[in-house]
Amino acid sequence: MTAVAVTESRCLTFEVAARCPETHARAGTLRLSHGTVHTPVFMPVGTQGAVKAASPRTLEELGAEMVLSNTYHLYLRPGHERIAALGGLHRFMGWSRPLLTDSGGYQVFSLGDNARVDDDGVRFVSHIDGSPHAFTPELSIAIQEALGADIAMVFDECLSYPATREVTRRSMERSVAWAARSKAAHTRETQALFGIVQGGFEADLRVQSAQATTALGFDGYAVGGLSVGEGRPLMLEMLEAVAPHLPEDAPRYLMGVGLPIDLVEAVARGFDMFDCVMPTRHARTGALFCGWGRIHIKNARFADDPGPIEPGCACYTCRTFSRAYLRHLFLAGEILAFELNTIHNLHHYLDRMARMRAAIAEGTFGAFRREALAQYHEETTHA
Amino acid sequence: MTAVAVTESRCLTFEVAARCPETHARAGTLRLSHGTVHTPVFMPVGTQGAVKAASPRTLEELGAEMVLSNTYHLYLRPGHERIAALGGLHRFMGWSRPLLTDSGGYQVFSLGDNARVDDDGVRFVSHIDGSPHAFTPELSIAIQEALGADIAMVFDECLSYPATREVTRRSMERSVAWAARSKAAHTRETQALFGIVQGGFEADLRVQSAQATTALGFDGYAVGGLSVGEGRPLMLEMLEAVAPHLPEDAPRYLMGVGLPIDLVEAVARGFDMFDCVMPTRHARTGALFCGWGRIHIKNARFADDPGPIEPGCACYTCRTFSRAYLRHLFLAGEILAFELNTIHNLHHYLDRMARMRAAIAEGTFGAFRREALAQYHEETTHA
Repeated sequence: MTAVAVTESRCLTFEVAARCPETHARAGTLRLSHGTVHTPVFMPVGTQGAVKAASPRTLEELGAEMVLSNTYHLYLRPGHERIAALGGLHRFMGWSRPLLTDSGGYQVFSLGDNARVDDDGVRFVSHIDGSPHAFTPELSIAIQEALGADIAMVFDECLSYPATREVTRRSMERSVAWAARSKAAHTRETQALFGIVQGGFEADLRVQSAQATTALGFDGYAVGGLSVGEGRPLMLEMLEAVAPHLPEDAPRYLMGVGLPIDLVEAVARGFDMFDCVMPTRHARTGALFCGWGRIHIKNARFADDPGPIEPGCACYTCRTFSRAYLRHLFLAGEILAFELNTIHNLHHYLDRMARMRAAIAEGTFGAFRREALAQYHEETTHA
Repeated sequence: MTAVAVTESRCLTFEVAARCPETHARAGTLRLSHGTVHTPVFMPVGTQGAVKAASPRTLEELGAEMVLSNTYHLYLRPGHERIAALGGLHRFMGWSRPLLTDSGGYQVFSLGDNARVDDDGVRFVSHIDGSPHAFTPELSIAIQEALGADIAMVFDECLSYPATREVTRRSMERSVAWAARSKAAHTRETQALFGIVQGGFEADLRVQSAQATTALGFDGYAVGGLSVGEGRPLMLEMLEAVAPHLPEDAPRYLMGVGLPIDLVEAVARGFDMFDCVMPTRHARTGALFCGWGRIHIKNARFADDPGPIEPGCACYTCRTFSRAYLRHLFLAGEILAFELNTIHNLHHYLDRMARMRAAIAEGTFGAFRREALAQYHEETTHA
């Protein structure tokens, strides 16, 4: 049942090594300038050039193969030209494996009233010091080339949710136009460039966006603008609408999603790459992933609990520390709590991805998914 | 020139392996219930059962052989009985090497108006929730026995600085009385107990305290109440007054001191054990040890500096990251800054101790000290 598809560019080779006989899930390898990534892959988020509370060697130990960083943040501080002068983002952040940078679109549009858009680009004021700035597709690409990640993303417009069909259509068309400008501006040969499918929650607009983006031709294809409050069923409906219109032989990246169960469902629909702040952000609030749900470590019932966060977990935190200790650290405001919680949550995500890859390779992903969904529903029903 | 002295109790063996021919410096081994410590030793401080921003495995990698934790803090939160029920402090904090607990005296007296002392002990209110508590020598020992560190400390009164001679004398006598009660209360056979010399800045009172404490008989002897604002010369004068009145064959512990150059000077006066929050606390404010002084990483002159914190330093932080990156992390408020800065500062301290031990063993400590003092004075003169 294994089909092999290979897409190859100057700087990206994607090979599908195994396919699930029941779903659209696939496992493969993504060869990039800084190394090989096994898909489906989860990328921890290093917004400001650092994954919060996780050093590069911790990430390597956890088996992270690729990290995402943010163009908007690094442009404002410390500045992309400074990073380039210091040898590029890999050297700057001490991470030798593949990197992906987003385009800055999502962050800029998150500024709300502090961002104004027209067909040329977006004017905005810095969240750090209120200084005025403007992003265009060309500038976003120039910044990303200076940072030098393995994969850059086109500059796209991210809609607020909900939006009318007409607003969604115009925004989608603008993103397609910006994708064309991004591609025209991109020259760095060691860097792949991904297109981004937009179109809100209008399935036909998503399909139009996918077709137009594919027609432009990119090294891989992302789906953006999801997980913004629409709920899992509608999100999955959009993935199902888009996936058939993306090339089989190129990597597919679902941006900014989500819970572990979301990743299972997106993998089942043929997606290969993921990023989300959820494991690291939840770690800092004491929400620790366990089973297909999570526990809140500050809960009084853990005060005398000698067990690990998650029974059977092989991470350093679970091998070494009790829930009672981690609760103590969290309540005492110890910085170490952030580090130890982050280790567990990232391990949980990366371990889930490894299990999915193994299940796809063994032809058992269908069963893995059914079991995950059943456990997830049981846990959330009784929570 | 090497003399060997051995003191042995149920739970502590101290062996001096080498002595400096020029100074009173000595190098040796301290065998405790949880392992062997090489002296002179620096103990990182884990106030609340965790060294701030440093995991146990990081401490092990840095070569830390012993950690200090605080009776006052652990008594209040999470509670010594809870820690005992969870298997003791070693297991609770995931640290298998030797531990020392202070007696809580220093913290209680730091509460100022929130603490009231009489001959029986100290009544105080919690800094966490304002609840009323009382420490006596007997309770301090009971808490420390429940925590189960390798070394416990007698409960002592810590003076505010400055204090009159009469207040100092009465306080010193009270501490001696409390030392006797602490010793009488102490029963845990796997735990050593150290006396503490007080006496403010009155050399003769320090000598009286040392003689009285030695007469009581402990596994080791600490000097407390120094580095409270008196300046280095007066502190060293007190050490010189006290040292001849402490047994040659027992470990000597200078509590809560200080800068690396202070440690050199105290080692030269025959002290073997040290703790201080300085390396970890400074790390969190961006003050990073370099040479015999320190740099402030947020300084604008480091914005484009590709070099490590300290040239030649072998720590993970210096091997991997530039000053420019560490400055960025610090200004961006990244938690990782605390971890990486802490690694460097602790490495700096522990490496200085290792160099002192090697110099004593090789008979070159006198030259090491002269060079350190010369560099320190040059750096501080030009700073």
